[in-house]
Amino acid sequence: MNYILKDENAQYFECGFSCDNAIFLRLGSEAFFITDARYVHEASMCIKNASVLEGDRRDLLKTVRLLIRKGGIKTLCYNPSEWTVDAYARLSEKVRITFQKKPNFSQQKRMIKRSDELELLRQAALFGKEAFECFGSFLNAQGVGIDEVRAHFEAEMIFKRYGELGLSFSPIVAFDENAAKPHALPTQKRLQKGSLVLLDAGVMYQRYCSDRTRTSSFEQVLVFEKEQYFSDALKQKVYDTVLLAQEAAIKAIKVGVRAKQIDQAARDVIDKTGFGEYFIHSTGHGVGLDIHELPIIGARSETIIEENMVFTIEPGIYLPDCFGVRIEDTVIVRENGAEVIG
Amino acid sequence: MNYILKDENAQYFECGFSCDNAIFLRLGSEAFFITDARYVHEASMCIKNASVLEGDRRDLLKTVRLLIRKGGIKTLCYNPSEWTVDAYARLSEKVRITFQKKPNFSQQKRMIKRSDELELLRQAALFGKEAFECFGSFLNAQGVGIDEVRAHFEAEMIFKRYGELGLSFSPIVAFDENAAKPHALPTQKRLQKGSLVLLDAGVMYQRYCSDRTRTSSFEQVLVFEKEQYFSDALKQKVYDTVLLAQEAAIKAIKVGVRAKQIDQAARDVIDKTGFGEYFIHSTGHGVGLDIHELPIIGARSETIIEENMVFTIEPGIYLPDCFGVRIEDTVIVRENGAEVIG
Repeated sequence: MNYILKDENAQYFECGFSCDNAIFLRLGSEAFFITDARYVHEASMCIKNASVLEGDRRDLLKTVRLLIRKGGIKTLCYNPSEWTVDAYARLSEKVRITFQKKPNFSQQKRMIKRSDELELLRQAALFGKEAFECFGSFLNAQGVGIDEVRAHFEAEMIFKRYGELGLSFSPIVAFDENAAKPHALPTQKRLQKGSLVLLDAGVMYQRYCSDRTRTSSFEQVLVFEKEQYFSDALKQKVYDTVLLAQEAAIKAIKVGVRAKQIDQAARDVIDKTGFGEYFIHSTGHGVGLDIHELPIIGARSETIIEENMVFTIEPGIYLPDCFGVRIEDTVIVRENGAEVIG
Repeated sequence: MNYILKDENAQYFECGFSCDNAIFLRLGSEAFFITDARYVHEASMCIKNASVLEGDRRDLLKTVRLLIRKGGIKTLCYNPSEWTVDAYARLSEKVRITFQKKPNFSQQKRMIKRSDELELLRQAALFGKEAFECFGSFLNAQGVGIDEVRAHFEAEMIFKRYGELGLSFSPIVAFDENAAKPHALPTQKRLQKGSLVLLDAGVMYQRYCSDRTRTSSFEQVLVFEKEQYFSDALKQKVYDTVLLAQEAAIKAIKVGVRAKQIDQAARDVIDKTGFGEYFIHSTGHGVGLDIHELPIIGARSETIIEENMVFTIEPGIYLPDCFGVRIEDTVIVRENGAEVIG
């Protein structure tokens, strides 16, 4: 099959390299990495399984069209969400071939992880866990009175290991009622003894992402563990419900089930306690080079679960203007069930 | 004119708000901001000059199509580089109207800044300058022996003012031969007494960007000022050439000239000293909500310079595997010439 890739992670997956101005092209048994003069040297040293070609910095597609014509290519697959209308026009207007839409083309290929990818994901998860502990120590030592903006900044530093690692996304640090927003942005809200703290964060290690969420009580010593004690009865009830839902979903992970069955396992627990309407997102998503990959673990996802898929399990309950709880781990699907990596 | 916007900064410019899942739609005298339940509340509080509508989180375009049909709209303008092939298909497939491509639609509107925008850009530039000084102090105190990765991390912290500000882009911190790459990524290369240090960085203040570059000598005390002393004669010659080129370009800024004339003024100086082939990019670019806006200050840019345009002047000379020098300021075009803001 002939295909063209624009997304950096899609390119990296094919040839072990990417940069911010390149096209990856597979034409039959040949593969090409087309980039401009700034990156040709580094690309040539790093790339496996593809020839590096230098193109015009402002118009790499010129080289692509040339290769298409030279190769007598009839059909080329592309992912319609990787291309803007603009770039697609420049790609397709001057060559008379059939362009075939392949939505999620690279994501589909990457859904089941190789063993070396699993190792990187395990290592990323381990770094992520360490950062949770480190951020917990920071809050216990210096947390009282700091606002979310400052806490968010400290979280970024800690998850980056002071420059050694990347972030898989900008951490979500939310106190009390701000935690009721699944994608809370940091505010001037200050941390107090007795607060609820939600931390959703991950690192990027050799381009592979970790993803984890803990919701914790800052009543005594804060620990980002699953066992939490809240003096407020409603908080405790919501917390325990989310934890049970997460455990149920993890237990439901088996080779051969459909993704929606895992989602249902979490939803059943939350529905039974009457909080169903406050669980407003899917149960999980794949994790790999992208922080959001396939499979989606949601109510409409018919994907059949296979060994070596990697995804999150992250049910949550969000009581508007009150508080929110989410608990998230990343898991690897193994022959006999889920391996929780972080 | 009827138009639809997807880009966050384009939306923010129209109505003072944006979020990561929204569509802005102007139909004649009416304007709509369509977003999902998560953002409707905040949007309603912040938005000026548009009605906030709640759409389906997974398909905001449903609401757009409805409004188009209800309004009896015949033509809708869109920016083809804001839309993926995918999203455009979902927008256009079910409505029978004419979609008109308007490349750089919002960028064109934003090219000449309002006075409140100029104030924000001046303030951003001021914060940026302060961060240059602060990073200089850090290098003088603790710089010997640190690698670029660590220096880059410190630069990020300093330019973010420890969480108070955003970054307009990830800082470029390059030592010696790594500075020969215009877009150097931080490496393990260590800073030594005698090194050349290039810093290209900016802050984001109330969504407006600053952008500045200094190249400095770390032979004695490092200062990110334009006056620099290098003991190496070639470095000094290159440095002085770039500085003269920058001054010439700034002097060439006048209401009514073409952008390419400003580029030519810088290029002439560098050509004369024989380094022309090592000045491998344009002289500058507009700055505003986006870090790269219009006008382009390049050899082919016919744009006529007008009062209250804001752009960078950043000539550079890059000697491969040796070193590079770039000096950049952001300027506001005033009635009588350029106001250098930093």
